[in-house]
Amino acid sequence: MTDTTTLSVEDLTGIVTGIFRTAGLSELQAERVAAVIVAGERDGCKSHGIYRIDGLLRTIDAGKVAPMAVPELSDDGSSVIRVDANGAFSPAAFHIGAPVLVERTRQQGIAALVINSCTHFSALWPEIEALTDRGLAAMAMCPSYATVAPTGGTRPLLGTNPIAFGWPRPDQPPYVFDIATSIAARGEIELHRRAGTDLPEGWALDRDGQPTTNPDRALEGAMLPFGAHKGSAIATMIELLAGVMIGDLTSPEALDFLGTTSLLPHHGELIIAFCPDRFAAGRRGDPLARAEVLFDAILGQGARLPSQRRFATREISRRRGIQLSAAEMESLRQAHRT
Amino acid sequence: MTDTTTLSVEDLTGIVTGIFRTAGLSELQAERVAAVIVAGERDGCKSHGIYRIDGLLRTIDAGKVAPMAVPELSDDGSSVIRVDANGAFSPAAFHIGAPVLVERTRQQGIAALVINSCTHFSALWPEIEALTDRGLAAMAMCPSYATVAPTGGTRPLLGTNPIAFGWPRPDQPPYVFDIATSIAARGEIELHRRAGTDLPEGWALDRDGQPTTNPDRALEGAMLPFGAHKGSAIATMIELLAGVMIGDLTSPEALDFLGTTSLLPHHGELIIAFCPDRFAAGRRGDPLARAEVLFDAILGQGARLPSQRRFATREISRRRGIQLSAAEMESLRQAHRT
Repeated sequence: MTDTTTLSVEDLTGIVTGIFRTAGLSELQAERVAAVIVAGERDGCKSHGIYRIDGLLRTIDAGKVAPMAVPELSDDGSSVIRVDANGAFSPAAFHIGAPVLVERTRQQGIAALVINSCTHFSALWPEIEALTDRGLAAMAMCPSYATVAPTGGTRPLLGTNPIAFGWPRPDQPPYVFDIATSIAARGEIELHRRAGTDLPEGWALDRDGQPTTNPDRALEGAMLPFGAHKGSAIATMIELLAGVMIGDLTSPEALDFLGTTSLLPHHGELIIAFCPDRFAAGRRGDPLARAEVLFDAILGQGARLPSQRRFATREISRRRGIQLSAAEMESLRQAHRT
Repeated sequence: MTDTTTLSVEDLTGIVTGIFRTAGLSELQAERVAAVIVAGERDGCKSHGIYRIDGLLRTIDAGKVAPMAVPELSDDGSSVIRVDANGAFSPAAFHIGAPVLVERTRQQGIAALVINSCTHFSALWPEIEALTDRGLAAMAMCPSYATVAPTGGTRPLLGTNPIAFGWPRPDQPPYVFDIATSIAARGEIELHRRAGTDLPEGWALDRDGQPTTNPDRALEGAMLPFGAHKGSAIATMIELLAGVMIGDLTSPEALDFLGTTSLLPHHGELIIAFCPDRFAAGRRGDPLARAEVLFDAILGQGARLPSQRRFATREISRRRGIQLSAAEMESLRQAHRT
């Protein structure tokens, strides 16, 4: 263990915040970006942890994100609250909009938060959990880049379009899932390429729109949606609701805008929040208690709840700190450029 | 063609309404039920057409649905509108609630309609299309019966829990999907049983929770969700939002309530409506026009839009009438009991 360093969540947050302050982000932007990256690292989501820092810095260097922009809240008193990120990363925009979303959801039963003109780099679960922590259920979705062919199609058009959902649980972590609507992540195809192994059937098409298990051909071609036509339909819904409807970029438009998938996508995000007590209206007892009966039945037959492993890692990180390898510590030092 | 009868949509509606009036339904209940059944037959959805009449009559005969109940609207001015079906079929409740949902969605940008204590027998697309016809986007979902095991589990717990979504298209049928979150419908397993053919891998578990391709063992066991853990998570979300949250029955509770899957489930339904103009707020132009760019790109690479076949059949039915076989006509005569 001599080559690992143990950092508290707070210490790592300080280091990552410093990296983004040095990279030119405002204090608000840097703090919110760091909170999301550290949450990923803390929960053992390596692909959404400090590994992401490099991509964020590259996107800043390319001038594709506004490092100092101040998010702008628009609230007309309706059930749709908007925050224009003004070209910055999404977490600060969410941070500004979330309290208004929570208040409006409690008033109205259901409300939506639209984030426009942001660069979104994180998983959706940090935002979902900020809402379940306030006793709300929530759904979030966003387009990404055109890398996925619709079922029956031949070329990249849809994004990997994630959709996430959360339900609050008293005295324990929430029920949360956060899934891509592509059958696999682009990173998983890349891992097969490096390992020289074939892809499972049904993951991808080549440049000519033919099924392929060759990772190189898949990367030149298109990924496929999860669950065949059903996943394709859900991915299309996400383009419509969280791209077109909110007046922001769809996945093909986001790719046109940046011209590459190697930088982080610029687009928007849609979050819908529900107040369980308002919806239940006293019928059949406390909805949170009733949900526990369902969770017990799932666990009671040996199935898992999504995010269980992540919450277990979080607990360990909180108790014992976050362990980083020498290479990871070095990457943090290199990221802290002057 | 001597053994087929051609009926106009209006004529078939009259016949089916008469069947349910004779079976004891109120005029409102009979009209709304008939409209949904005829829509299925008109669109070539045989499994949701006049084939369904028998199941409805059996559920009425078993005393599991209230034939004369008057749906009760509750509107506290918030973004959640409720209709208590008071134990009747769902279409009349939706009919009462939809105009208020449309008005509230235009005011608030997003709103929800909760239908409680209904017997739901139809696809969700008729309700979705009633909202897209008014220029709104909409999502609908409901639990059903515990017949599906969660991924990693061994026993039936979740329902086939459908989720549907629609987006309005000017001067043509909407973008609509309506999918079960089980990998296959129970009826498809039944068809394999009758044909004596094996099920595809991954459809079902036997009574001991082991994978099976034997239709008999599958019917004694559990179906599986579509898209593995992702579909399982979505089906669980539907139990939470459209069962627990709205103060109505989950799929295991619905099965306990009736004690059989051979009658139609009693439960609730959740419909969420979105006003695209309110969400877009003038950003990036007309959202309906921008959506057409996406649809053109899907169709342009040879993929289909969901429901395309159904809309084509609808057009034929409208022009040439609905053709019914001698056996189907006889089933209508027998259903018209005195």
